[in-house]
Amino acid sequence: MTMCELFAMSADRPTDVGHSLSLLMPRGGKIGPHADGWGVAYYEGRAARIFKEPAPASESRCLALLAEYDLKSTTVIAHIRKANPAIFGRATANTHPFEREWNGCSWVFAHNGKLPGLKSMSALRNQRFQPVGDTDSEYAFCLIMNAVARAALPGEGRPSPKKLLSTIRPIVDDLAGLGEFNFILSDGENLYAHAHTKLHALRRTIETNGRKQSVTLLATAPLTAEPWQPLAPNSLRVYAGGSDITPVPRRTGIRPRPTAFGVLTAAVA
Amino acid sequence: MTMCELFAMSADRPTDVGHSLSLLMPRGGKIGPHADGWGVAYYEGRAARIFKEPAPASESRCLALLAEYDLKSTTVIAHIRKANPAIFGRATANTHPFEREWNGCSWVFAHNGKLPGLKSMSALRNQRFQPVGDTDSEYAFCLIMNAVARAALPGEGRPSPKKLLSTIRPIVDDLAGLGEFNFILSDGENLYAHAHTKLHALRRTIETNGRKQSVTLLATAPLTAEPWQPLAPNSLRVYAGGSDITPVPRRTGIRPRPTAFGVLTAAVA
Repeated sequence: MTMCELFAMSADRPTDVGHSLSLLMPRGGKIGPHADGWGVAYYEGRAARIFKEPAPASESRCLALLAEYDLKSTTVIAHIRKANPAIFGRATANTHPFEREWNGCSWVFAHNGKLPGLKSMSALRNQRFQPVGDTDSEYAFCLIMNAVARAALPGEGRPSPKKLLSTIRPIVDDLAGLGEFNFILSDGENLYAHAHTKLHALRRTIETNGRKQSVTLLATAPLTAEPWQPLAPNSLRVYAGGSDITPVPRRTGIRPRPTAFGVLTAAVA
Repeated sequence: MTMCELFAMSADRPTDVGHSLSLLMPRGGKIGPHADGWGVAYYEGRAARIFKEPAPASESRCLALLAEYDLKSTTVIAHIRKANPAIFGRATANTHPFEREWNGCSWVFAHNGKLPGLKSMSALRNQRFQPVGDTDSEYAFCLIMNAVARAALPGEGRPSPKKLLSTIRPIVDDLAGLGEFNFILSDGENLYAHAHTKLHALRRTIETNGRKQSVTLLATAPLTAEPWQPLAPNSLRVYAGGSDITPVPRRTGIRPRPTAFGVLTAAVA
Protein backbone atom coordinates (compact mmCIF):
# COMPACT_ATOMS: atom_id res chain seq x y z
CA MET A 1 0.00 0.00 0.00
CA THR A 2 1.47 3.32 -1.02
CA MET A 3 1.40 6.40 1.14
CA CYS A 4 0.51 8.69 -1.71
CA GLU A 5 -0.21 8.59 -5.39
CA LEU A 6 1.77 10.55 -7.92
CA PHE A 7 0.63 11.40 -11.42
CA ALA A 8 2.27 13.51 -14.11
CA MET A 9 1.96 14.28 -17.79
CA SER A 10 4.27 15.68 -20.43
CA ALA A 11 2.83 16.49 -23.85
CA ASP A 12 3.92 18.29 -26.99
CA ARG A 13 0.69 20.28 -27.15
CA PRO A 14 -1.69 21.46 -24.40
CA THR A 15 -3.65 18.39 -23.34
CA ASP A 16 -6.58 17.78 -21.03
CA VAL A 17 -5.86 15.48 -18.05
CA GLY A 18 -9.44 15.50 -16.77
CA HIS A 19 -9.94 11.82 -17.49
CA SER A 20 -6.78 10.83 -15.61
CA LEU A 21 -7.81 13.00 -12.66
CA SER A 22 -11.21 11.36 -12.58
CA LEU A 23 -9.45 7.96 -12.39
CA LEU A 24 -7.10 9.20 -9.66
CA MET A 25 -9.79 10.89 -7.58
CA PRO A 26 -11.51 7.87 -5.99
CA ARG A 27 -8.14 6.65 -4.66
CA GLY A 28 -8.17 9.70 -2.38
CA GLY A 29 -10.36 8.32 0.39
CA LYS A 30 -12.88 6.15 -1.43
CA ILE A 31 -11.23 3.07 -2.99
CA GLY A 32 -7.75 4.11 -1.76
CA PRO A 33 -6.50 5.36 1.62
CA HIS A 34 -5.04 8.72 0.52
CA ALA A 35 -7.59 10.91 2.21
CA ASP A 36 -5.44 13.73 3.59
CA GLY A 37 -5.14 16.02 0.62
CA TRP A 38 -4.76 16.43 -3.09
CA GLY A 39 -3.10 18.90 -5.44
CA VAL A 40 -2.73 19.49 -9.16
CA ALA A 41 -0.23 21.82 -10.86
CA TYR A 42 -0.86 22.90 -14.45
CA TYR A 43 1.98 24.72 -16.15
CA GLU A 44 1.35 27.58 -18.51
CA GLY A 45 4.76 28.60 -19.81
CA ARG A 46 7.04 29.41 -16.88
CA ALA A 47 4.17 29.70 -14.41
CA ALA A 48 2.27 26.94 -12.64
CA ARG A 49 -1.34 27.17 -11.57
CA ILE A 50 -1.72 24.97 -8.51
CA PHE A 51 -4.96 23.82 -6.97
CA LYS A 52 -4.73 22.02 -3.65
CA GLU A 53 -6.87 21.05 -0.72
CA PRO A 54 -6.01 19.35 2.58
CA ALA A 55 -9.12 17.16 2.33
CA PRO A 56 -10.08 13.83 0.68
CA ALA A 57 -9.82 13.93 -3.12
CA SER A 58 -12.78 11.59 -3.42
CA GLU A 59 -15.09 14.09 -1.70
CA SER A 60 -13.70 17.28 -3.23
CA ARG A 61 -16.11 19.37 -5.26
CA CYS A 62 -13.14 21.47 -6.33
CA LEU A 63 -11.25 18.47 -7.77
CA ALA A 64 -14.47 17.20 -9.37
CA LEU A 65 -14.77 20.59 -11.09
CA LEU A 66 -11.13 20.46 -12.26
CA ALA A 67 -11.63 16.97 -13.68
CA GLU A 68 -14.33 18.29 -15.99
CA TYR A 69 -12.87 21.81 -16.49
CA ASP A 70 -11.37 22.66 -19.84
CA LEU A 71 -7.84 23.00 -18.42
CA LYS A 72 -5.16 22.08 -20.93
CA SER A 73 -1.41 22.04 -20.31
CA THR A 74 1.75 20.48 -21.66
CA THR A 75 3.06 19.74 -18.16
CA VAL A 76 0.93 18.56 -15.23
CA ILE A 77 1.83 17.18 -11.79
CA ALA A 78 -0.81 15.73 -9.46
CA HIS A 79 -0.63 14.14 -6.02
CA ILE A 80 -3.05 12.61 -3.58
CA ARG A 81 -1.86 12.31 -0.04
CA LYS A 82 -2.03 9.99 2.92
CA ALA A 83 -0.39 11.81 5.84
CA ASN A 84 2.32 9.53 7.15
CA PRO A 85 3.54 9.79 9.80
CA ALA A 86 0.30 11.25 11.09
CA ILE A 87 2.13 14.10 12.83
CA PHE A 88 2.66 15.75 9.42
CA GLY A 89 -1.04 16.45 9.57
CA ARG A 90 -3.71 17.67 7.21
CA ALA A 91 -2.77 21.22 6.28
CA THR A 92 -2.32 23.32 3.17
CA ALA A 93 1.37 23.69 4.03
CA ASN A 94 1.75 19.89 3.98
CA THR A 95 -0.17 19.32 0.75
CA HIS A 96 1.74 18.52 -2.45
CA PRO A 97 2.70 19.70 -5.00
CA PHE A 98 5.08 22.30 -3.57
CA GLU A 99 6.29 25.28 -5.58
CA ARG A 100 9.21 27.70 -5.55
CA GLU A 101 10.22 30.41 -8.00
CA TRP A 102 13.79 30.23 -9.17
CA ASN A 103 15.35 32.31 -11.95
CA GLY A 104 11.92 33.41 -13.12
CA CYS A 105 10.46 29.90 -13.44
CA SER A 106 8.03 28.10 -11.17
CA TRP A 107 9.51 24.82 -9.94
CA VAL A 108 7.02 22.21 -8.77
CA PHE A 109 7.63 19.04 -6.79
CA ALA A 110 5.59 16.10 -5.49
CA HIS A 111 6.81 13.03 -3.61
CA ASN A 112 5.72 9.48 -2.92
CA GLY A 113 7.42 7.68 -0.03
CA LYS A 114 8.96 8.70 3.25
CA LEU A 115 12.38 9.88 4.37
CA PRO A 116 12.71 9.11 8.09
CA GLY A 117 15.46 10.98 9.89
CA LEU A 118 15.68 13.70 7.25
CA LYS A 119 14.26 16.63 9.09
CA SER A 120 17.14 18.37 10.76
CA MET A 121 16.84 22.09 10.12
CA SER A 122 20.61 22.46 10.25
CA ALA A 123 20.96 21.37 6.62
CA LEU A 124 18.73 24.25 5.54
CA ARG A 125 20.01 26.90 7.93
CA ASN A 126 20.89 30.11 6.08
CA GLN A 127 19.75 28.52 2.85
CA ARG A 128 17.67 30.27 0.28
CA PHE A 129 14.68 27.93 0.16
CA GLN A 130 13.02 26.98 3.45
CA PRO A 131 10.05 24.70 4.11
CA VAL A 132 6.72 26.32 4.95
CA GLY A 133 5.16 23.10 6.29
CA ASP A 134 6.28 20.06 8.29
CA THR A 135 6.78 17.32 5.72
CA ASP A 136 9.96 15.45 4.88
CA SER A 137 8.86 15.90 1.25
CA GLU A 138 8.99 19.69 1.24
CA TYR A 139 12.25 19.55 3.19
CA ALA A 140 13.73 17.34 0.43
CA PHE A 141 12.41 19.71 -2.24
CA CYS A 142 14.16 22.64 -0.53
CA LEU A 143 17.44 20.68 -0.40
CA ILE A 144 17.15 20.01 -4.13
CA MET A 145 16.23 23.61 -4.99
CA ASN A 146 19.05 25.03 -2.88
CA ALA A 147 21.46 22.83 -4.84
CA VAL A 148 19.91 23.94 -8.14
CA ALA A 149 20.24 27.60 -7.12
CA ARG A 150 23.86 27.13 -6.02
CA ALA A 151 24.80 25.41 -9.27
CA ALA A 152 23.83 28.20 -11.65
CA LEU A 153 24.13 31.92 -12.01
CA PRO A 154 21.03 34.09 -11.75
CA GLY A 155 19.73 34.95 -15.18
CA GLU A 156 20.83 31.66 -16.76
CA GLY A 157 17.21 30.51 -16.97
CA ARG A 158 16.41 26.84 -16.76
CA PRO A 159 19.42 24.53 -16.50
CA SER A 160 19.83 21.96 -19.27
CA PRO A 161 18.51 18.50 -18.34
CA LYS A 162 22.08 17.21 -18.36
CA LYS A 163 23.25 19.88 -15.94
CA LEU A 164 20.20 19.50 -13.72
CA LEU A 165 20.66 15.73 -13.47
CA SER A 166 24.32 16.01 -12.55
CA THR A 167 23.45 18.70 -9.97
CA ILE A 168 20.74 16.77 -8.17
CA ARG A 169 21.86 13.13 -8.62
CA PRO A 170 24.10 13.02 -5.51
CA ILE A 171 21.41 14.59 -3.30
CA VAL A 172 18.72 12.34 -4.75
CA ASP A 173 20.81 9.24 -4.00
CA ASP A 174 21.51 10.45 -0.46
CA LEU A 175 17.84 11.10 0.17
CA ALA A 176 16.73 7.80 -1.36
CA GLY A 177 19.11 6.09 1.06
CA LEU A 178 16.97 7.36 3.94
CA GLY A 179 13.76 5.65 2.84
CA GLU A 180 11.56 5.82 -0.22
CA PHE A 181 11.91 8.67 -2.67
CA ASN A 182 9.78 8.53 -5.79
CA PHE A 183 9.24 12.08 -7.02
CA ILE A 184 8.32 14.33 -9.89
CA LEU A 185 10.04 17.70 -10.34
CA SER A 186 9.48 20.22 -13.10
CA ASP A 187 10.68 23.60 -14.29
CA GLY A 188 7.67 23.85 -16.61
CA GLU A 189 9.49 22.58 -19.68
CA ASN A 190 11.22 19.46 -18.40
CA LEU A 191 9.60 16.85 -16.18
CA TYR A 192 12.11 15.02 -13.98
CA ALA A 193 10.97 11.68 -12.57
CA HIS A 194 12.84 9.69 -9.94
CA ALA A 195 11.63 6.08 -9.89
CA HIS A 196 13.19 4.90 -6.66
CA THR A 197 10.89 1.99 -5.86
CA LYS A 198 7.94 2.47 -8.17
CA LEU A 199 6.88 4.67 -11.02
CA HIS A 200 5.23 3.66 -14.28
CA ALA A 201 5.27 5.38 -17.66
CA LEU A 202 2.82 5.20 -20.52
CA ARG A 203 3.56 6.69 -23.94
CA ARG A 204 0.54 7.56 -26.02
CA THR A 205 0.55 8.82 -29.58
CA ILE A 206 -2.81 10.34 -30.31
CA GLU A 207 -3.98 11.50 -33.71
CA THR A 208 -6.32 14.47 -33.51
CA ASN A 209 -7.58 16.13 -36.70
CA GLY A 210 -4.74 14.56 -38.68
CA ARG A 211 -2.03 15.85 -36.30
CA LYS A 212 -0.02 13.43 -34.23
CA GLN A 213 0.37 14.26 -30.58
CA SER A 214 2.89 12.79 -28.15
CA VAL A 215 1.93 12.31 -24.52
CA THR A 216 3.76 10.57 -21.71
CA LEU A 217 1.91 9.78 -18.49
CA LEU A 218 3.67 8.85 -15.26
CA ALA A 219 2.03 7.32 -12.20
CA THR A 220 2.98 5.38 -9.09
CA ALA A 221 0.21 2.92 -9.99
CA PRO A 222 -1.10 2.45 -13.55
CA LEU A 223 -4.40 4.23 -14.04
CA THR A 224 -5.66 2.19 -16.99
CA ALA A 225 -5.38 -1.26 -18.57
CA GLU A 226 -2.92 0.09 -21.16
CA PRO A 227 0.67 -1.25 -21.20
CA TRP A 228 2.25 1.00 -18.53
CA GLN A 229 5.96 0.26 -18.19
CA PRO A 230 7.57 0.14 -14.76
CA LEU A 231 10.64 2.41 -14.70
CA ALA A 232 13.89 0.83 -13.53
CA PRO A 233 14.51 1.22 -9.76
CA ASN A 234 16.67 4.27 -8.92
CA SER A 235 16.30 5.71 -12.42
CA LEU A 236 16.13 9.46 -12.88
CA ARG A 237 14.50 10.30 -16.20
CA VAL A 238 13.61 13.50 -18.08
CA TYR A 239 10.56 14.08 -20.23
CA ALA A 240 9.75 17.07 -22.43
CA GLY A 241 7.18 17.62 -25.13
CA GLY A 242 5.71 14.18 -24.39
CA SER A 243 8.96 12.26 -24.98
CA ASP A 244 11.69 10.71 -22.87
CA ILE A 245 14.71 12.96 -23.46
CA THR A 246 16.97 11.53 -20.74
CA PRO A 247 20.57 12.20 -21.79
CA VAL A 248 22.76 9.10 -22.09
CA PRO A 249 25.35 9.34 -19.29
CA ARG A 250 29.01 9.35 -20.17
CA ARG A 251 30.86 6.68 -18.26
CA THR A 252 33.76 8.54 -16.70
CA GLY A 253 34.48 6.29 -13.77
CA ILE A 254 34.56 9.43 -11.65
CA ARG A 255 32.26 9.37 -8.65
CA PRO A 256 30.29 12.58 -8.06
CA ARG A 257 31.72 14.83 -5.38
CA PRO A 258 30.04 14.45 -2.01
CA THR A 259 27.57 17.26 -1.38
CA ALA A 260 27.23 19.37 1.74
CA PHE A 261 24.04 17.45 2.25
CA GLY A 262 25.85 14.14 1.79
CA VAL A 263 28.13 15.00 4.68
CA LEU A 264 25.12 15.84 6.79
CA THR A 265 23.38 12.58 5.95
CA ALA A 266 26.43 10.69 7.09
CA ALA A 267 26.41 12.68 10.32
CA VAL A 268 22.74 12.12 11.14
CA ALA A 269 22.35 8.59 9.76
CA MET B 1 -12.24 53.60 -13.87
CA THR B 2 -9.82 51.36 -12.05
CA MET B 3 -7.61 48.87 -13.79
CA CYS B 4 -8.14 46.20 -11.20
CA GLU B 5 -10.00 45.60 -8.02
CA LEU B 6 -8.29 44.65 -4.80
CA PHE B 7 -9.94 43.03 -1.82
CA ALA B 8 -8.47 41.77 1.45
CA MET B 9 -9.57 40.62 4.85
CA SER B 10 -7.89 40.33 8.24
CA ALA B 11 -9.80 38.60 11.05
CA ASP B 12 -9.09 37.30 14.54
CA ARG B 13 -10.73 33.96 13.77
CA PRO B 14 -11.12 32.01 10.51
CA THR B 15 -13.86 33.77 8.57
CA ASP B 16 -15.73 33.03 5.38
CA VAL B 17 -15.30 35.63 2.60
CA GLY B 18 -17.72 33.95 0.21
CA HIS B 19 -20.21 36.81 0.38
CA SER B 20 -17.54 39.41 -0.41
CA LEU B 21 -16.29 37.30 -3.33
CA SER B 22 -19.82 37.01 -4.70
CA LEU B 23 -20.03 40.84 -4.59
CA LEU B 24 -16.62 41.21 -6.25
CA MET B 25 -17.23 38.61 -8.95
CA PRO B 26 -19.59 40.48 -11.30
CA ARG B 27 -17.06 43.34 -11.52
CA GLY B 28 -14.81 40.93 -13.39
CA GLY B 29 -16.31 41.28 -16.83
CA LYS B 30 -20.04 41.72 -16.18
CA ILE B 31 -20.77 45.03 -14.43
CA GLY B 32 -17.05 45.98 -14.34
CA PRO B 33 -14.30 45.88 -16.97
CA HIS B 34 -11.81 43.62 -15.15
CA ALA B 35 -12.21 40.61 -17.38
CA ASP B 36 -8.61 39.38 -17.72
CA GLY B 37 -8.21 37.27 -14.60
CA TRP B 38 -8.94 36.76 -10.96
CA GLY B 39 -7.18 35.24 -7.98
CA VAL B 40 -7.83 34.59 -4.31
CA ALA B 41 -5.24 33.68 -1.66
CA TYR B 42 -6.41 32.10 1.60
CA TYR B 43 -3.79 31.80 4.30
CA GLU B 44 -3.66 28.80 6.56
CA GLY B 45 -0.85 29.51 9.04
CA ARG B 46 2.34 30.22 7.12
CA ALA B 47 1.02 28.77 3.87
CA ALA B 48 -1.28 30.35 1.30
CA ARG B 49 -3.67 28.46 -0.87
CA ILE B 50 -4.07 30.43 -4.08
CA PHE B 51 -6.71 29.94 -6.71
CA LYS B 52 -6.32 31.92 -9.92
CA GLU B 53 -7.53 31.95 -13.46
CA PRO B 54 -6.60 34.15 -16.43
CA ALA B 55 -10.26 34.47 -17.44
CA PRO B 56 -13.23 36.68 -16.53
CA ALA B 57 -14.25 36.38 -12.86
CA SER B 58 -17.87 36.89 -13.78
CA GLU B 59 -17.91 33.74 -15.93
CA SER B 60 -15.70 31.54 -13.75
CA ARG B 61 -17.27 28.35 -12.46
CA CYS B 62 -14.21 27.93 -10.26
CA LEU B 63 -14.68 31.32 -8.55
CA ALA B 64 -18.41 30.65 -8.25
CA LEU B 65 -17.54 27.43 -6.42
CA LEU B 66 -15.09 29.25 -4.12
CA ALA B 67 -17.70 31.90 -3.28
CA GLU B 68 -19.96 29.20 -1.90
CA TYR B 69 -17.22 26.85 -0.60
CA ASP B 70 -16.72 26.56 3.13
CA LEU B 71 -13.25 28.17 3.01
CA LYS B 72 -12.41 30.07 6.17
CA SER B 73 -9.24 32.01 6.82
CA THR B 74 -7.93 34.85 9.01
CA THR B 75 -6.10 36.44 6.08
CA VAL B 76 -7.40 36.65 2.52
CA ILE B 77 -6.23 38.61 -0.53
CA ALA B 78 -8.28 38.76 -3.73
CA HIS B 79 -7.79 40.53 -7.05
CA ILE B 80 -9.66 40.87 -10.29
CA ARG B 81 -7.69 42.05 -13.23
CA LYS B 82 -7.97 44.25 -16.27
CA ALA B 83 -4.80 43.78 -18.28
CA ASN B 84 -3.33 47.22 -18.84
CA PRO B 85 -1.32 47.84 -20.88
CA ALA B 86 -2.75 45.09 -23.03
CA ILE B 87 0.72 43.72 -23.79
CA PHE B 88 0.83 42.23 -20.27
CA GLY B 89 -1.73 39.79 -21.60
CA ARG B 90 -4.03 37.18 -20.17
CA ALA B 91 -1.82 34.52 -18.65
CA THR B 92 -1.48 32.64 -15.39
CA ALA B 93 1.95 34.25 -14.92
CA ASN B 94 0.35 37.71 -15.10
CA THR B 95 -2.55 36.94 -12.77
CA HIS B 96 -2.52 38.29 -9.20
CA PRO B 97 -2.00 37.51 -6.38
CA PHE B 98 1.68 36.60 -6.68
CA GLU B 99 3.46 34.46 -4.12
CA ARG B 100 7.01 33.84 -2.92
CA GLU B 101 8.36 31.79 -0.04
CA TRP B 102 10.73 33.62 2.24
CA ASN B 103 12.08 32.35 5.57
CA GLY B 104 9.50 29.57 5.62
CA CYS B 105 6.47 31.83 5.09
CA SER B 106 4.40 32.38 1.98
CA TRP B 107 4.34 36.06 1.02
CA VAL B 108 1.45 37.15 -1.16
CA PHE B 109 1.01 40.39 -3.11
CA ALA B 110 -1.66 42.02 -5.29
CA HIS B 111 -1.58 45.45 -6.93
CA ASN B 112 -3.98 48.02 -8.28
CA GLY B 113 -2.56 50.69 -10.58
CA LYS B 114 0.28 50.89 -13.04
CA LEU B 115 3.96 51.70 -12.85
CA PRO B 116 5.10 52.89 -16.28
CA GLY B 117 8.83 52.82 -16.86
CA LEU B 118 9.47 50.34 -14.07
CA LYS B 119 10.42 47.29 -16.01
CA SER B 120 14.15 47.40 -16.44
CA MET B 121 15.53 44.00 -15.60
CA SER B 122 18.81 45.51 -14.41
CA ALA B 123 17.32 46.29 -10.98
CA LEU B 124 16.63 42.61 -10.44
CA ARG B 125 19.78 41.20 -12.01
CA ASN B 126 21.47 38.72 -9.68
CA GLN B 127 18.65 39.19 -7.19
CA ARG B 128 17.00 36.38 -5.31
CA PHE B 129 13.40 36.90 -6.44
CA GLN B 130 12.72 37.20 -10.17
CA PRO B 131 9.42 37.74 -11.99
CA VAL B 132 7.84 34.76 -13.75
CA GLY B 133 5.44 36.88 -15.82
CA ASP B 134 5.50 40.22 -17.60
CA THR B 135 3.66 42.61 -15.30
CA ASP B 136 4.98 45.72 -13.62
CA SER B 137 3.12 44.46 -10.53
CA GLU B 138 5.12 41.26 -10.12
CA TYR B 139 8.30 43.20 -10.86
CA ALA B 140 7.46 45.58 -8.01
CA PHE B 141 6.69 42.62 -5.73
CA CYS B 142 10.12 41.14 -6.47
CA LEU B 143 11.81 44.48 -5.67
CA ILE B 144 10.00 44.56 -2.32
CA MET B 145 10.77 40.92 -1.49
CA ASN B 146 14.44 41.31 -2.40
CA ALA B 147 14.61 44.23 0.03
CA VAL B 148 12.82 42.20 2.72
CA ALA B 149 15.25 39.32 2.23
CA ARG B 150 18.27 41.63 2.35
CA ALA B 151 17.09 43.29 5.56
CA ALA B 152 16.88 40.19 7.73
CA LEU B 153 18.87 37.10 8.53
CA PRO B 154 17.57 33.71 7.42
CA GLY B 155 15.85 32.00 10.31
CA GLU B 156 14.52 35.21 11.84
CA GLY B 157 11.00 34.37 10.72
CA ARG B 158 8.58 37.16 9.93
CA PRO B 159 9.92 40.68 10.46
CA SER B 160 8.02 42.84 12.95
CA PRO B 161 5.56 45.24 11.31
CA LYS B 162 7.76 48.13 12.41
CA LYS B 163 10.84 46.63 10.78
CA LEU B 164 8.95 45.66 7.64
CA LEU B 165 7.52 49.14 7.21
CA SER B 166 10.89 50.82 7.59
CA THR B 167 12.40 48.31 5.14
CA ILE B 168 9.86 48.79 2.36
CA ARG B 169 8.80 52.43 2.81
CA PRO B 170 11.58 53.95 0.64
CA ILE B 171 10.95 51.45 -2.18
CA VAL B 172 7.20 51.90 -1.94
CA ASP B 173 7.58 55.68 -2.23
CA ASP B 174 9.93 55.32 -5.20
CA LEU B 175 7.52 52.98 -6.95
CA ALA B 176 4.48 55.12 -6.20
CA GLY B 177 6.35 58.00 -7.82
CA LEU B 178 6.24 56.11 -11.13
CA GLY B 179 2.45 55.90 -11.33
CA GLU B 180 -0.26 54.34 -9.20
CA PHE B 181 0.63 51.84 -6.51
CA ASN B 182 -2.19 50.62 -4.31
CA PHE B 183 -1.26 47.18 -3.01
CA ILE B 184 -1.83 44.51 -0.41
CA LEU B 185 1.08 42.42 0.89
CA SER B 186 0.97 39.71 3.53
CA ASP B 187 3.22 37.28 5.37
CA GLY B 188 0.16 35.35 6.57
CA GLU B 189 -0.06 37.08 9.93
CA ASN B 190 0.20 40.75 9.01
CA LEU B 191 -1.64 42.38 6.16
CA TYR B 192 0.17 45.44 4.75
CA ALA B 193 -1.93 47.87 2.74
CA HIS B 194 -0.56 50.74 0.72
CA ALA B 195 -3.30 53.26 -0.08
CA HIS B 196 -1.57 55.35 -2.70
CA THR B 197 -4.57 56.79 -4.48
CA LYS B 198 -7.47 54.68 -3.27
CA LEU B 199 -8.18 51.99 -0.73
CA HIS B 200 -11.10 51.73 1.67
CA ALA B 201 -11.33 49.96 5.01
CA LEU B 202 -14.34 48.62 6.86
CA ARG B 203 -14.15 47.39 10.45
CA ARG B 204 -16.81 44.93 11.46
CA THR B 205 -17.37 43.54 14.94
CA ILE B 206 -19.53 40.47 14.64
CA GLU B 207 -21.03 38.60 17.55
CA THR B 208 -21.34 34.89 16.86
CA ASN B 209 -22.59 32.54 19.59
CA GLY B 210 -21.78 35.12 22.25
CA ARG B 211 -18.17 35.58 21.03
CA LYS B 212 -17.08 38.85 19.55
CA GLN B 213 -15.14 38.68 16.33
CA SER B 214 -13.05 41.42 14.75
CA VAL B 215 -12.84 41.67 10.98
CA THR B 216 -11.31 44.35 8.78
CA LEU B 217 -12.10 44.40 5.09
CA LEU B 218 -10.09 46.39 2.56
CA ALA B 219 -11.12 47.17 -1.01
CA THR B 220 -10.29 49.61 -3.77
CA ALA B 221 -14.03 50.27 -4.10
CA PRO B 222 -16.51 49.70 -1.24
CA LEU B 223 -18.42 46.44 -1.70
CA THR B 224 -21.44 47.29 0.44
CA ALA B 225 -23.47 50.26 1.68
CA GLU B 226 -21.69 50.08 5.07
CA PRO B 227 -19.51 53.04 6.16
CA TRP B 228 -16.23 52.15 4.42
CA GLN B 229 -13.52 54.68 5.27
CA PRO B 230 -11.14 55.90 2.58
CA LEU B 231 -7.54 55.48 3.76
CA ALA B 232 -5.34 58.57 3.59
CA PRO B 233 -3.39 58.91 0.33
CA ASN B 234 0.15 57.44 0.54
CA SER B 235 -0.60 55.68 3.83
CA LEU B 236 0.97 52.32 4.56
CA ARG B 237 -1.02 50.47 7.19
CA VAL B 238 -0.76 47.10 8.95
CA TYR B 239 -3.62 44.87 10.00
CA ALA B 240 -3.51 41.70 12.07
CA GLY B 241 -6.21 39.70 13.82
CA GLY B 242 -8.85 41.98 12.30
CA SER B 243 -7.40 45.20 13.76
CA ASP B 244 -5.29 48.10 12.54
CA ILE B 245 -1.95 47.63 14.32
CA THR B 246 0.04 50.24 12.39
CA PRO B 247 2.90 51.40 14.64
CA VAL B 248 3.02 55.13 15.35
CA PRO B 249 6.15 56.45 13.60
CA ARG B 250 8.79 58.19 15.67
CA ARG B 251 9.60 61.59 14.26
CA THR B 252 13.36 61.61 13.97
CA GLY B 253 13.84 64.13 11.23
CA ILE B 254 16.19 61.63 9.57
CA ARG B 255 15.35 60.78 6.00
CA PRO B 256 15.53 57.10 5.13
CA ARG B 257 18.69 56.09 3.31
CA PRO B 258 18.29 55.93 -0.47
CA THR B 259 17.91 52.34 -1.65
CA ALA B 260 19.74 50.69 -4.48
CA PHE B 261 16.41 50.77 -6.24
CA GLY B 262 16.01 54.47 -5.48
CA VAL B 263 19.22 55.17 -7.29
CA LEU B 264 17.99 53.15 -10.22
CA THR B 265 14.67 54.98 -10.32
CA ALA B 266 16.53 58.24 -10.47
CA ALA B 267 18.59 56.85 -13.33
CA VAL B 268 15.66 55.60 -15.40
CA ALA B 269 13.14 58.33 -14.52
